Amino acid sequence: MIEVISGIEHARRRMAEIRRQGLAIGLVPTMGALHDGHLSLIERARSGNDRVVTSIFVNPTQYDDPDDLEQYPRTLAADTGRAEAAGADLIFHPEFEDIYRDDYRFRITESEFSRELEGAHRKDHFDGVLTVVLKLFNIVQADRAYFGEKDWQQLLLVRDMAAAFFHRTEIVACPTVREPDGLAMSSRNVHLNQEERRLAPEFHRTLSSGAPTDDMERQLADLGFVVDYVEQRGDRILGAVRLGRVRLIDNVQT
Amino acid sequence: MIEVISGIEHARRRMAEIRRQGLAIGLVPTMGALHDGHLSLIERARSGNDRVVTSIFVNPTQYDDPDDLEQYPRTLAADTGRAEAAGADLIFHPEFEDIYRDDYRFRITESEFSRELEGAHRKDHFDGVLTVVLKLFNIVQADRAYFGEKDWQQLLLVRDMAAAFFHRTEIVACPTVREPDGLAMSSRNVHLNQEERRLAPEFHRTLSSGAPTDDMERQLADLGFVVDYVEQRGDRILGAVRLGRVRLIDNVQT
Repeated sequence: MIEVISGIEHARRRMAEIRRQGLAIGLVPTMGALHDGHLSLIERARSGNDRVVTSIFVNPTQYDDPDDLEQYPRTLAADTGRAEAAGADLIFHPEFEDIYRDDYRFRITESEFSRELEGAHRKDHFDGVLTVVLKLFNIVQADRAYFGEKDWQQLLLVRDMAAAFFHRTEIVACPTVREPDGLAMSSRNVHLNQEERRLAPEFHRTLSSGAPTDDMERQLADLGFVVDYVEQRGDRILGAVRLGRVRLIDNVQT
Repeated sequence: MIEVISGIEHARRRMAEIRRQGLAIGLVPTMGALHDGHLSLIERARSGNDRVVTSIFVNPTQYDDPDDLEQYPRTLAADTGRAEAAGADLIFHPEFEDIYRDDYRFRITESEFSRELEGAHRKDHFDGVLTVVLKLFNIVQADRAYFGEKDWQQLLLVRDMAAAFFHRTEIVACPTVREPDGLAMSSRNVHLNQEERRLAPEFHRTLSSGAPTDDMERQLADLGFVVDYVEQRGDRILGAVRLGRVRLIDNVQT
């Protein structure tokens, strides 16, 4: 039976108990609304650790758009069942007031890569992400934490942050899980209407086309996407687009 | 025989070994140039832990004044002897390039108290302090870390940061150690010339006088100090003054 813990001190005690038994802990940090992408992270954690913790916390400090925050789906009961089926032993579901007992006076900032791409379009987004991730890392003290490649920039920033602060938790990157038509799984996809959902896979198809990024931007705009950016970084092409009120991000290896 | 470790991975392994033996670790973070104030922290750590680690790292990111950084005394051999005599088991003496392998891209910021008092006079000072303290905390994973009340604002910010990030290390506050004439011990005191050294105890005497803080500022200026600030916070009066090229800080309980 899966264990659900909300209290931070309770979670810390429980984690210390597990560590004292010499068991390896895998952490999958999520904001809930679990889909097959999340479940693939939990399965991966299951195969590499003795105990798997899934955290569910919708983190307000990483949202600059109150609408986006408000419409983020909250489905704890369903999430718990899905996480358990995928192999999680424990759900950590803390309260905002406990995680931010400092009123967000203290934060982690990054001065370069976090200002580009997503960071250029979502003010202070990565401050919020990095801050909550470090808090969760310190509470859980996992041996490994699992992040999806769909949020490529987040993955790199979290990995670099863990290294910069000499954190004990190793960051494991996991491939993006896609719908059969290529659309990257995202909790936001449920907000696409029928017409938008039909169009959405063109985003990934275009990023994979091998065209220059400027051409990709034009093609996506012609198709009806509002393009935030399409940019190459190293061997990745990263993009963010909007369809109505839904913002989609994706990336592909070139 | 005291152990001296520079490598970060080496230090992490050594600390993990000590923890695995169930021994409690006390950390005294310093920038070296150890005086009786530091030694009192080491003695306090000695009495409350099985193993005592003194870190020695002159942290450039907390200096906005290159002169101040350059003239900070570096006395590793003497420090090692003094730390050992006071009860330290291990000196951790990392290199700048290792601590800041991220080129200081990642930092901890605090949005309120860190901007006042010292923070108002030393730009980004507390970003540098908090960032290096969290790095040291994560490397050493001490049970307790010891900070002097002389750096009152630093003590409060470090304590609140550790709480905000749910760090396992408990912060222990230790009383300011003073010369017989009342001057708070500081590594910077060696730079006072004879005339400045004669005048310096008037700083603490004035802060302790019970006068309104405006009057204290005037009195200190009349005596020949350049006053950065004298301010009350809660039941503390905190001050910073300059004598020639030397900057002194101090605080008293009212």
